[in-house]
Formats: sequence, C-alpha cells, structure tokens
Amino acid sequence: MKANRMEAFSDGVLAIIITIMVLEFKVPEGHDWHSLTGLIPKIMSYIVSFVYVGIYWNNHHHLLHTVRRINGKLMWLNMLLLFCLSLVPFTTAWMGESHFAPTPTALYGIVLLMAAVAYMFLQRAIIGQHPADSVIVSAMGKDLKGKLSPILYLLAIIMAYVMPWVSCFFFVLVAIVWFVPDKRIEQALSMHNEEHGA
Amino acid sequence: MKANRMEAFSDGVLAIIITIMVLEFKVPEGHDWHSLTGLIPKIMSYIVSFVYVGIYWNNHHHLLHTVRRINGKLMWLNMLLLFCLSLVPFTTAWMGESHFAPTPTALYGIVLLMAAVAYMFLQRAIIGQHPADSVIVSAMGKDLKGKLSPILYLLAIIMAYVMPWVSCFFFVLVAIVWFVPDKRIEQALSMHNEEHGA
Amino acid sequence: MKANRMEAFSDGVLAIIITIMVLEFKVPEGHDWHSLTGLIPKIMSYIVSFVYVGIYWNNHHHLLHTVRRINGKLMWLNMLLLFCLSLVPFTTAWMGESHFAPTPTALYGIVLLMAAVAYMFLQRAIIGQHPADSVIVSAMGKDLKGKLSPILYLLAIIMAYVMPWVSCFFFVLVAIVWFVPDKRIEQALSMHNEEHGA
Amino acid sequence: MKANRMEAFSDGVLAIIITIMVLEFKVPEGHDWHSLTGLIPKIMSYIVSFVYVGIYWNNHHHLLHTVRRINGKLMWLNMLLLFCLSLVPFTTAWMGESHFAPTPTALYGIVLLMAAVAYMFLQRAIIGQHPADSVIVSAMGKDLKGKLSPILYLLAIIMAYVMPWVSCFFFVLVAIVWFVPDKRIEQALSMHNEEHGA
Repeated sequence: MKANRMEAFSDGVLAIIITIMVLEFKVPEGHDWHSLTGLIPKIMSYIVSFVYVGIYWNNHHHLLHTVRRINGKLMWLNMLLLFCLSLVPFTTAWMGESHFAPTPTALYGIVLLMAAVAYMFLQRAIIGQHPADSVIVSAMGKDLKGKLSPILYLLAIIMAYVMPWVSCFFFVLVAIVWFVPDKRIEQALSMHNEEHGA
Repeated sequence: MKANRMEAFSDGVLAIIITIMVLEFKVPEGHDWHSLTGLIPKIMSYIVSFVYVGIYWNNHHHLLHTVRRINGKLMWLNMLLLFCLSLVPFTTAWMGESHFAPTPTALYGIVLLMAAVAYMFLQRAIIGQHPADSVIVSAMGKDLKGKLSPILYLLAIIMAYVMPWVSCFFFVLVAIVWFVPDKRIEQALSMHNEEHGA
Repeated sequence: MKANRMEAFSDGVLAIIITIMVLEFKVPEGHDWHSLTGLIPKIMSYIVSFVYVGIYWNNHHHLLHTVRRINGKLMWLNMLLLFCLSLVPFTTAWMGESHFAPTPTALYGIVLLMAAVAYMFLQRAIIGQHPADSVIVSAMGKDLKGKLSPILYLLAIIMAYVMPWVSCFFFVLVAIVWFVPDKRIEQALSMHNEEHGA
Repeated sequence: MKANRMEAFSDGVLAIIITIMVLEFKVPEGHDWHSLTGLIPKIMSYIVSFVYVGIYWNNHHHLLHTVRRINGKLMWLNMLLLFCLSLVPFTTAWMGESHFAPTPTALYGIVLLMAAVAYMFLQRAIIGQHPADSVIVSAMGKDLKGKLSPILYLLAIIMAYVMPWVSCFFFVLVAIVWFVPDKRIEQALSMHNEEHGA
C-alpha cells in the first residue's frame, strides 16, 4: 500500500513537471507566424524534455513494481530523483531561451546527469532488497543503457562548449535509446512471477 | 493495473492543463467593469478550450476502458496526445490575446487537429488489439465524428485567414458534436460484456 | 468505478485551484515587514477562497457518494461546477489587489453565486436519480443552507457598491454557515444504509 | 474510504506545492555561469523547502494511517496544515530573493512554526480518537521531535535579526532531525497490529 502512495505522489509531481514547462511559452507580441520564430528553440527543447520526463515516468513505474518494501532510504532516494527532475523545466527554458548557448546546454546535460545518477541510486537500493542470485538482479546487472547514458551526458556537457548541436544530438540519442520501455525489468518480472508461481 | 496508472497520469496532466489556462487571466490595472473588456475574448477562448479538454478527458476515459493490455506503443501514443493537448493553453491564450486574429486562430485549429490525429492513432492502436469481427471494432469503425472533426478543423484553419469568426463557429460546432459522451464505445462495451457474460 | 474517476479528476482540479492562488503572492521589492503591507488584503481574500474551495471539496465528496450512476449530464454539470470554481483564483487576486474595490468584490460574489447555482444543478440531477420518497430526497429537500447562500451572495453583490466590507462580511458568513460538513447527506446516507441493510 | 480521499487530496496539494516552487527560478538574462549567481540563494532555500515538504508528506502519511474515522474537525485541521504549507513557496522565494535578509528569514521560520503547530493540532485530534492507554498514545506522547522543533523555529525567528545564517543553520538542523521517517508511529502501529492480531 505504501509503495502505491509513493507511486501516486511521484506521478503527481511528474505530471506537474511535464505540464508547467508550457508556462514558459509566453504569448508573443505580434499576431503572425513570424512572431513565433523566437519560440522555435523553446518548443524543440520542450519536446526533448517532454520525452525525457515521459521516459522517467515509464521506467520509474516499472522499477517501483520490483520494490519489496518501502523504507526511509527508498523514499528519500525517490525524492532526490524528483528533485533533480524538478529542475528540468528551468534548464529547458534557459536552453531554449538562449538558443542552445554553451552554458545553458551544458547545465541541461548536468541536470540530466544528476537525474540519471539519482535513478541509478534508487535502482541499486531496490536491487539490494532482492537476493543476489534472483532473476531481477541478474537482469538489472547488465543495464547497458543505464551505464551508457551518463557517459553520453558527460560528452554532451563537454561538447556544449565546442559544438552545442552535438550536445543536442546526444540528448536526442539518449532519449531514443530509452524510448522503448525497460524490457529488462518487464522480462525479469514475468520470469520472477513464473518462478514463484504468482 | 498498468492501464489504471496510465489513466491516472493522463487525468493528472489533463487536470493541470485545464486549470493553468486561468493563469492567463492577469489581474487588470483598473477596478471597474470596463477594465475587464480586454479579458472577454480570453474568457471566450477559455470556455471553448475548457469544453475541449473536458471532452478529451471523457472520451479518453471511455477509450481506455477498451484497452486489453498496455504496451510501449500505446504508452507513447498516449504521451503524444497529452503533448498536443499541453499546447492548448498557449494557443488559447494567444488566440484570446490577439482578439481572434488570423494566425493565432489558425494555430488554435492546427493544435486541435494534431490532438485529433493523435487520438485517432491511439484509437486505432487500441482497436488493433481486438479481433476484427468484434463488436467494438465494428462500432468504432463507423466513427463519423472522428472523421468529421479533422475536416472541420481544416476548414477552420483555412477560414481563419478569410473570416476568423467562421473558424470560431467551427470550433464551437465540433465541441457541440462531441459534447455528448461517446455512445458508440459505451454501447459496444455493454454488448461486449453481454457477449462474454461479464 | 466511473464515479471514482470523476471524483479523482475533480479532486485534482480542486487541489490545483486551491494551490495556484498562492502564485499571486509576488515577492515584494523590499525586505522588511512594511513591504508586506500590500499583501494583507491579498492574503485575507486568499484565506476566504481557501475555505470556500475546501468547503466545495468536502461537500462535493459527500454529494458524489449519493450518485447512483454517472451519465453525460452529471459529467457536464460537474465540469460546469469546476469551471465556475476555476475562476475563483482570478477574482480572489483581483479583489485582493484592488483592496476590496466595489466591482472586484461584486465579481467575487458573482463567481461564488455561479458556483452555488452549478452545485445546485448537480445536486438536483443526483437527487433525480433517487425515488421521490427516499430518505435522501427528503433530507436534501430541506437544504436551508443551499437556499440561503445565493440570497446572501446577491446581497453581497449589491452591497459591494454601497459598503464593500458588508459584502466581505457576507462572504465570511456563508463560509461559516457551510464550514461544518453537510450533516444532512451524512445522516440521510446512514439512514439509507440502514433501510437497505447495507 | 474517506481517509483515502483526504490523503489523496493532501498528496495532490503537497505535490503541487513542492513543484511550483521551481516557477520562481526565472530564466536569467545572460547565458553564462555568472548569470546564475543570483539564483544560488534561491536554489539553497528551494532545497531546504523541498526537504521540508517531503518530510511533511512522509509524516502526514504515517499519521493518517492511525486515523480511526474522519470527521469535520480532522478535515479542517488537515486543511489548516495544507494552508500553512501553501505559504512555503512564497516565503522560500522571498528568503532566497532577499539573500537571507532578516525579515524574510524570520517569516520563513514563522510559516514553518505555523505548520508545525497545525500538525500538532492534527496529531492531537487523531490521538484523541484512541483510548488513553493504547500503544499509539503512549508512543506519540513522547514526541521529542515535535516538541523540539517549535523551540528551534522560535530561536531561528529571533536569530534572523542577529545572525541570519544561524537561523538557516536551525532550519537545516530541524530538517535533519526529521529526515528519518517517524519510527514512533511505525513501531506503535506494528505493536498495535500485533495487539489486535491484524
């Protein structure tokens, strides 16, 4: 029951994060297509962030299904993840507003990196609740995506000062890599259920 | 269970979308009725958008009840629908602010068209989960409203550059057409339940 | 099940309405107590609106428990109520900003009156689902509060142009009258349950 | 069932409170790290407030699990707590904006004190529902944290006019003290369940 409430609270926060980003689209002065030009980089960064929050919502949902019992540690690691993601609307707006200038683009990568690290901590704490030889642990252990993403974020942060569009390419690349729901856990869960006949 | 969570997340996003539109009503400088004059086109566009989001919330609810199993495709088509609807507050504000100028009115129609297309994709993906000869498929196949709306949106987009008030008339017309909950699915569902004795 | 979802959606909208009102408290320029003076009428109107939304949330909850089946009519009457309440943050901010000037105070009363009428419609539609001689119908029929409130709102609207503080007194008075949860329905429901042995 | 709905509504309000605080991070004019300097005190106060709302969410959740029946009194004491917490985004923004000036820092402490007192009232009302010799009452009776926090808030309010950084130290100290979920209630609940064989 407690896990349900943590899930519902996280869902609420993620739904608000994903929606308040549109508050950054200020109504332009003019009334023609030209007056929307300034919004193009903003909407591009909004699309990427929308996909990221969607990915986190989806993977978070899969991850929480493997929780055995909620404790203070899990609760606060989850809050840490939500905190990092709550900074996404600000960095999204700044990156868009600045037309992908180096520092705002680097900061966008830093916040994504922080969220990825928080997610990794949460994942490890949940894996730690399962016996070391369980299907879930071995399935999660591979976690290629989880190990690849921080490296790509780091590259994006560095490249922001050389060629910001390369950073944007990396952000989109990671989003595509994660686009598909986390099959690992889904498979492990179904195997786990078969094992225990549930 | 998973469908429930997608429904709850969508509900949260729709509730926020419908409510943050009021944030566009800036407190006017004056303190008399005259100072509200500038808000009249804003509140008119707000009413129309409120009804649209209400319609989507209601039909979305009916539609999700016919889902057999959630997968990555459904989840992302649902996110696409929410993304399109998340642009409604911006276009509502711009259309109202501009007193129904051509381009903002056309953009309002474009966003509604995008949402209608996203909804159609979601509907098709869900229909695809049912056998071709099921009651639900045949009931949805007729879908006159769903086929009529995009045509009316297209007309509204074109008319925005000729007579914007005709576009507004089309927006209100589509809203009225959809006002009544989707009986098709309701009936198909009850027939479906009878068939399977559930 | 459907009633649950309408309740959850309404809860979401009410939670957002009650919370976005604080966005009107702009951070003042100065850093001393004196710079908060301008916020005093705002916080006073916020407190009254907070109590009103709380009352609606509470009574709405009691009311929905007596629903037998959700249909399109109920769903749209509920949306009408939410629409009226969604205007409360704007009128609250305007009334506070204007230091209880006549027109903003009258508009505040008008929006409360609209919400009260929408609630009455919703209540009648729900009563209509019950047989005329049921305990719930006879209990609701008395509805002194429901009949008194619109009269007090009307008086408040008129008095706004004579002595605005009298209007404020009426707003507070109605809030106090409604403060206690709707015992009528609670009692009727428990009698109803006894009758049917549920 | 009713307690569930109060919990869900409170969760919604707390999720919004915790998320709208980020709306205070206005996109800076410049596009370099230096232009973020002005945001540092804001983000510091945001972190502290995020942890406080997280703590309230967590303890509130534990507390509501001990509720036997919801009545008007509990419902309104809960609304009082939500009202106090709804003022946190404003005081957080003002304290950050003013770079921890005396009055904004004192007001931050006053709002935390108000929330602590509201929580205490809610807790007492819930304790009052249990027999005086129950495990829960004796466990809650100790409540060292609950008695210590208001004293530290009071000290912080006074110190804001002498050395504001001492106030900040007290705010962080109380947050650390409460960081760990309320073991008292958790233990009492498990004992309670054992007693009644549930």
